[in-house]
Amino acid sequence: MKKILVINGPNLNLLGEREPGIYGGDNYETLCEKLMDKADELSVKCEVFQSNHEGAMIDKLHSARTEFDGIVLNAGAFTHYSYAVRDAIAAIKIPVIEVHISNVFAREDFRKTSVIAPVCKGSISGLGFGSYFLAMEALVNYCG
Amino acid sequence: MKKILVINGPNLNLLGEREPGIYGGDNYETLCEKLMDKADELSVKCEVFQSNHEGAMIDKLHSARTEFDGIVLNAGAFTHYSYAVRDAIAAIKIPVIEVHISNVFAREDFRKTSVIAPVCKGSISGLGFGSYFLAMEALVNYCG
Amino acid sequence: MKKILVINGPNLNLLGEREPGIYGGDNYETLCEKLMDKADELSVKCEVFQSNHEGAMIDKLHSARTEFDGIVLNAGAFTHYSYAVRDAIAAIKIPVIEVHISNVFAREDFRKTSVIAPVCKGSISGLGFGSYFLAMEALVNYCG
Amino acid sequence: MKKILVINGPNLNLLGEREPGIYGGDNYETLCEKLMDKADELSVKCEVFQSNHEGAMIDKLHSARTEFDGIVLNAGAFTHYSYAVRDAIAAIKIPVIEVHISNVFAREDFRKTSVIAPVCKGSISGLGFGSYFLAMEALVNYCG
Amino acid sequence: MKKILVINGPNLNLLGEREPGIYGGDNYETLCEKLMDKADELSVKCEVFQSNHEGAMIDKLHSARTEFDGIVLNAGAFTHYSYAVRDAIAAIKIPVIEVHISNVFAREDFRKTSVIAPVCKGSISGLGFGSYFLAMEALVNYCG
Amino acid sequence: MKKILVINGPNLNLLGEREPGIYGGDNYETLCEKLMDKADELSVKCEVFQSNHEGAMIDKLHSARTEFDGIVLNAGAFTHYSYAVRDAIAAIKIPVIEVHISNVFAREDFRKTSVIAPVCKGSISGLGFGSYFLAMEALVNYCG
Amino acid sequence: MKKILVINGPNLNLLGEREPGIYGGDNYETLCEKLMDKADELSVKCEVFQSNHEGAMIDKLHSARTEFDGIVLNAGAFTHYSYAVRDAIAAIKIPVIEVHISNVFAREDFRKTSVIAPVCKGSISGLGFGSYFLAMEALVNYCG
Amino acid sequence: MKKILVINGPNLNLLGEREPGIYGGDNYETLCEKLMDKADELSVKCEVFQSNHEGAMIDKLHSARTEFDGIVLNAGAFTHYSYAVRDAIAAIKIPVIEVHISNVFAREDFRKTSVIAPVCKGSISGLGFGSYFLAMEALVNYCG
Amino acid sequence: MKKILVINGPNLNLLGEREPGIYGGDNYETLCEKLMDKADELSVKCEVFQSNHEGAMIDKLHSARTEFDGIVLNAGAFTHYSYAVRDAIAAIKIPVIEVHISNVFAREDFRKTSVIAPVCKGSISGLGFGSYFLAMEALVNYCG
Amino acid sequence: MKKILVINGPNLNLLGEREPGIYGGDNYETLCEKLMDKADELSVKCEVFQSNHEGAMIDKLHSARTEFDGIVLNAGAFTHYSYAVRDAIAAIKIPVIEVHISNVFAREDFRKTSVIAPVCKGSISGLGFGSYFLAMEALVNYCG
Amino acid sequence: MKKILVINGPNLNLLGEREPGIYGGDNYETLCEKLMDKADELSVKCEVFQSNHEGAMIDKLHSARTEFDGIVLNAGAFTHYSYAVRDAIAAIKIPVIEVHISNVFAREDFRKTSVIAPVCKGSISGLGFGSYFLAMEALVNYCG
Amino acid sequence: MKKILVINGPNLNLLGEREPGIYGGDNYETLCEKLMDKADELSVKCEVFQSNHEGAMIDKLHSARTEFDGIVLNAGAFTHYSYAVRDAIAAIKIPVIEVHISNVFAREDFRKTSVIAPVCKGSISGLGFGSYFLAMEALVNYCG
Repeated sequence: MKKILVINGPNLNLLGEREPGIYGGDNYETLCEKLMDKADELSVKCEVFQSNHEGAMIDKLHSARTEFDGIVLNAGAFTHYSYAVRDAIAAIKIPVIEVHISNVFAREDFRKTSVIAPVCKGSISGLGFGSYFLAMEALVNYCG
Repeated sequence: MKKILVINGPNLNLLGEREPGIYGGDNYETLCEKLMDKADELSVKCEVFQSNHEGAMIDKLHSARTEFDGIVLNAGAFTHYSYAVRDAIAAIKIPVIEVHISNVFAREDFRKTSVIAPVCKGSISGLGFGSYFLAMEALVNYCG
Repeated sequence: MKKILVINGPNLNLLGEREPGIYGGDNYETLCEKLMDKADELSVKCEVFQSNHEGAMIDKLHSARTEFDGIVLNAGAFTHYSYAVRDAIAAIKIPVIEVHISNVFAREDFRKTSVIAPVCKGSISGLGFGSYFLAMEALVNYCG
Repeated sequence: MKKILVINGPNLNLLGEREPGIYGGDNYETLCEKLMDKADELSVKCEVFQSNHEGAMIDKLHSARTEFDGIVLNAGAFTHYSYAVRDAIAAIKIPVIEVHISNVFAREDFRKTSVIAPVCKGSISGLGFGSYFLAMEALVNYCG
Repeated sequence: MKKILVINGPNLNLLGEREPGIYGGDNYETLCEKLMDKADELSVKCEVFQSNHEGAMIDKLHSARTEFDGIVLNAGAFTHYSYAVRDAIAAIKIPVIEVHISNVFAREDFRKTSVIAPVCKGSISGLGFGSYFLAMEALVNYCG
Repeated sequence: MKKILVINGPNLNLLGEREPGIYGGDNYETLCEKLMDKADELSVKCEVFQSNHEGAMIDKLHSARTEFDGIVLNAGAFTHYSYAVRDAIAAIKIPVIEVHISNVFAREDFRKTSVIAPVCKGSISGLGFGSYFLAMEALVNYCG
Repeated sequence: MKKILVINGPNLNLLGEREPGIYGGDNYETLCEKLMDKADELSVKCEVFQSNHEGAMIDKLHSARTEFDGIVLNAGAFTHYSYAVRDAIAAIKIPVIEVHISNVFAREDFRKTSVIAPVCKGSISGLGFGSYFLAMEALVNYCG
Repeated sequence: MKKILVINGPNLNLLGEREPGIYGGDNYETLCEKLMDKADELSVKCEVFQSNHEGAMIDKLHSARTEFDGIVLNAGAFTHYSYAVRDAIAAIKIPVIEVHISNVFAREDFRKTSVIAPVCKGSISGLGFGSYFLAMEALVNYCG
Repeated sequence: MKKILVINGPNLNLLGEREPGIYGGDNYETLCEKLMDKADELSVKCEVFQSNHEGAMIDKLHSARTEFDGIVLNAGAFTHYSYAVRDAIAAIKIPVIEVHISNVFAREDFRKTSVIAPVCKGSISGLGFGSYFLAMEALVNYCG
Repeated sequence: MKKILVINGPNLNLLGEREPGIYGGDNYETLCEKLMDKADELSVKCEVFQSNHEGAMIDKLHSARTEFDGIVLNAGAFTHYSYAVRDAIAAIKIPVIEVHISNVFAREDFRKTSVIAPVCKGSISGLGFGSYFLAMEALVNYCG
Repeated sequence: MKKILVINGPNLNLLGEREPGIYGGDNYETLCEKLMDKADELSVKCEVFQSNHEGAMIDKLHSARTEFDGIVLNAGAFTHYSYAVRDAIAAIKIPVIEVHISNVFAREDFRKTSVIAPVCKGSISGLGFGSYFLAMEALVNYCG
Repeated sequence: MKKILVINGPNLNLLGEREPGIYGGDNYETLCEKLMDKADELSVKCEVFQSNHEGAMIDKLHSARTEFDGIVLNAGAFTHYSYAVRDAIAAIKIPVIEVHISNVFAREDFRKTSVIAPVCKGSISGLGFGSYFLAMEALVNYCG
């Protein structure tokens, strides 16, 4: 049975409360539950992790490399400047898929640059919580 | 029954022959067949269209606005400079999801810029043919 | 009797339907009719041409060089990147006036650059359909 | 009866004398007379104002906001850097149309940027004195 | 008794009338009165000066150097390009505090650059008329 | 009684010791005491928080959103690159005022860019500890 | 017997008529004849193709990949922005040599960038029709 | 007898008082006297003009075109952004020599760009008041 | 006896496992042992610290300022964007030498910029573990 | 009988030894011999010159202006920055053709800029030693 | 008696022959003679040196530091990129004045940047041979 | 016995005399002696070479490739622009270590770019003469 880790970066814990026009009105707990439901549907094990600390995210990526088969990563604002997170992804061998709830290309200029995209397996954005679900499917079906 | 249009842009007809290390060894016919299989699986109608002509792609986007419920678009190299295709997407009201077979962010610099992404509903890349399949799923499940 | 060609570029055929807040609610047929009325008022012959194909626009510019006395050109999105259209304008000797329905300088950054403006006789923008009518007058009265 | 103000910025008083290859050989007085003739033809009242002082131009724009129905503005070199003139245009409610005698896009690079264009109603350039006449027509006919 | 000069640059005389969503609905006279009230509260003498002329602003800065103990300066759009105003500030020895009514960092890109900030003592923005009042306090309490 | 949170970012704990020519000779404890004195003077409750950890600062911003009426934020070097802190400020609804002890615009180029300024209510810099005191006043008097 | 395809891009059909100071006074038919003469001299078969349509050029490049031994390509203005043509060259395995009649490096800035050069075998420019003849020789002698 | 006009731009009236480490300790009156002495030595007539107003400087340049044989221009900070002054210089036919007291290339970056230099006859900087004297000599001896 | 602190930043704990082609096959424990051996050879005391947390690194730099005589710092990816680490180095008075295992100048563009180099005493890169050993020698022999 | 000078710039003397994957395995002596053979074939006199000294290359270009009918120039790395070599080419009247063995456009970014191309007659690259031979032919046949 | 060294950089030996429209028709020998005449007039000793070799120019600058009282330097194209010449000027203590025959600011963009200007005493350009004569005067009269 | 070549570039011969605040007060002869002492200590043969001529440096690099086991290179200002020196380093197979006496990253912007670093084995800067000694050790101990 495959094991998938979902990592959520800074400020995602405020989901539902933060700019609902962009991120939707569901809160973070709802997201976690839906991820677990999706995992059941796909018959995979799933763990969800959230932190506002860049270092904690790197530690988690490191430890995941021997415990999981793939990672769904919403790096939040770290997407745009954290070369340390980038190096962490490059350092581990399991596939990482970058996700974003909103269409980051339609927002502020700085959100159009992803320093982690070049070292991820793939990237999915703009489809709400669906971005996570499709990434989980992709890890199961299209990432050998 | 939902109707989905898949549009493939320039040079995608050479799939399998063109840089297989990047795009995989399956040829264009195989992609078309697999898209039809996926459509059956999702119980949607699907049409696949390919052209090397920017104008033909715009004409197709226009006519699709009253005939389809959503579009999966691999604009090929037009992704990086065709503001005319961008305007065509912005002009129609049905959702368009941008797809790429390869991880465009890990390749040449000019491939990191998408002039169409800001007017698409979402974007999926790096997952091989899976990028198309997930986009079809997204149109069915996560785009209203 | 002077002969004027009006060329409309990509997506202008969707006028009225496309972003009416920017382009107004009149459709393309109405524009065509009003251009003909203006031609009558100015006592000139007028032909209106529209295409979403860059190559077709270039072919038309070429053939116009011996058949018309001046051209009113709304190149749509080609305005911002088609050096091929630019070269076509530079290659013919009759005056070409660039027009835009909306004030392109008040919109997205990429719309602020016109690669064709340096080889046109003049440029008129922001005055709705009036941009076309004034360009026709300019060809009659101010372009020797 | 509509009232139109024509504002000419720095160095336009030297018209005819200054780079006649670019601006034509007619002098400033001739321009003023022709503007008055055009006003008669259009049945509007017209005042023409010229200053080499940015502050005087701003003062004039301010006072015009309650006295005129529209403004034709050739801001000369202020076009390229005067954010103060830009703010003055944005602060008043009557329509302002930017004009240039020469095709500014075909000259030095710094002339390709207009800091005032985004807050003007429209822009006309490259048609000699005709740029002014067309702008007057536009105020009468297309800026209702 | 300390003497403070408040200098307001171009277009601030239209306060209340100009983009009230950004600058508030109070007009310039109200600002002047409130500045005088604040001066009374702080037991300082205060003069308020406004001009749309860069040269007049420089002349005022020069003459102030022997007559006042400090200056509150809202340079308006000159903030973004007037190196002449910058040099005037650098040439005088009394402290100058830059103020802005709106949060200039949340508006157009050109408003994010202040060429005068490096030679001012400090900078306060985004707090409505409060920006002025705090600057007056700063001159009284925190500028030697 | 209003409650104000003062957040100090990385390296501010070394105040007095670190580049006293720029930041003054008073140490961090003195700053804390003076902030408390100012709070008494303004009749508000005040908590002061310092951390060198970006994640801790984000956590604090999150928890403050229901406990305080406003925040005075000296983000230290995070000011210049932390989009994660920016997103945290944007995610909470209470007003945040950015402060800096020194005039950041008169120092190294990288200090002239603030990625958090666009989402703060206002910004005060260059006035020593006074920047904090004025920000506290602003929260009490000018931030509704 | 080797087979060489010569592809001429947009506006080259106007040769002789278009800016003869830059491109020479010989017309397009003369170029075609001289290319055939050169082919005879080199004992190769030669076909010459011209189009103003980007899509048609891509279609031709595709079909040529099994019919010719090498391609001489003057992509005209497409040289400077058509990543679709670039991808077509990269997708086929026969050698392509880029040619230009004029010295593109001595003209407008936008002509100094070739997006196709990195995927061509070599590049020859500035030698009039000689650029074509030398490219044909190169395909025969140096692209074994 | 030749007639030379010396124009001094903004803030030069504060000479001696303003940053004496850069501009020297002599005041503006001393400069004026020394310019007159130099004029006597060169047997030319000389007028010295100073203004902090861009418009006044342009007016003076205009009126000088029929009254003087050459101009020595220290445009102060206008050097770096006043395209209006640039146009005034280009519009008159008598030679203008740009001078600077300090070595502008050894100071802030913005001082390294002169928008007026391209339309001046020559440029002299870094030699204190000597820059003026040499420019006067140049007008007499090398600008035939 | 001198005391040296070696600080290793994010992802260095994965040494040996992470891109061994670039960083070599020895793991982090081996590095630590060799650093201790080198310390013995140089007769200095040595402590080695690693963290993936930017804040922890700053805290360590702060506390080191009174406990060590010098610091060898491999900041990992923080090298390229952490102005907070930069400020921490600038705030302490003991010498810090920047080291890198690989030749960072021969890798991705973003690795060529070090925001901490300007405030370090010196920099050593490209010599494998030798970079650390030489830095320790430098602290003993060449840093006063 | 025409006389042609071939100039080879820095590091070309190491041909065969230096990066043979890019430049081929033939050494410099072989190149010289083949150039002489080609000269015989074309019935021209030929001299080959190599230097690693920029000044020596300039001296040679100068002296060649009265002794040769044309120059084939492989400026090596001077291609990318030596404005002094550029000025030397511009100062002499005989045609100079720029050659490169490899396709410089497919290598490092800095190799894509040629500061000498704008003043050369033409440019040939990517065809191995063939680039030289074609340039010799061009001088004989296509450079008047 | 003062001793002045005049250094002329690359290509100046071709004076009169090279682009006479820009540099005048007098040849290099004439320049040398006129420099000697000027030296007599100023009662100074003068040596003139020319080289196309950057290293020779640096050697000359070094040896001059104990033999001359000042240097007039026309560095030719080295002006725009030779940081080595810049360092040589900075390393010697006698004043160096940069001269240019033409107005370098009115020519190609790359000529607008002088890497040596920041370390020279002053700069004179655009006055033909007069630039040299004035620089000699400046060394005698204004560089005490 | 290993043989090491130390190459010093332009202006290093003026060591001690040139900006002693940056480079220290020891002169070039002292450096040479200390390098020989260090060579003795390391039991290697050492030759020291200095030239202000770029070409001489390249010639020396070429000839060294068969005579030495490694090179310590202080390229002086050539570091920042000499692609010819870069190519020379890339063309030889023995290891080259880049050294700088001062911390080049803490000085002028142009000194922050090293065009030779990407082709060197490693880089050491900021440690005075120690930079050289450590580089010699590195060649002996850490470069295979």
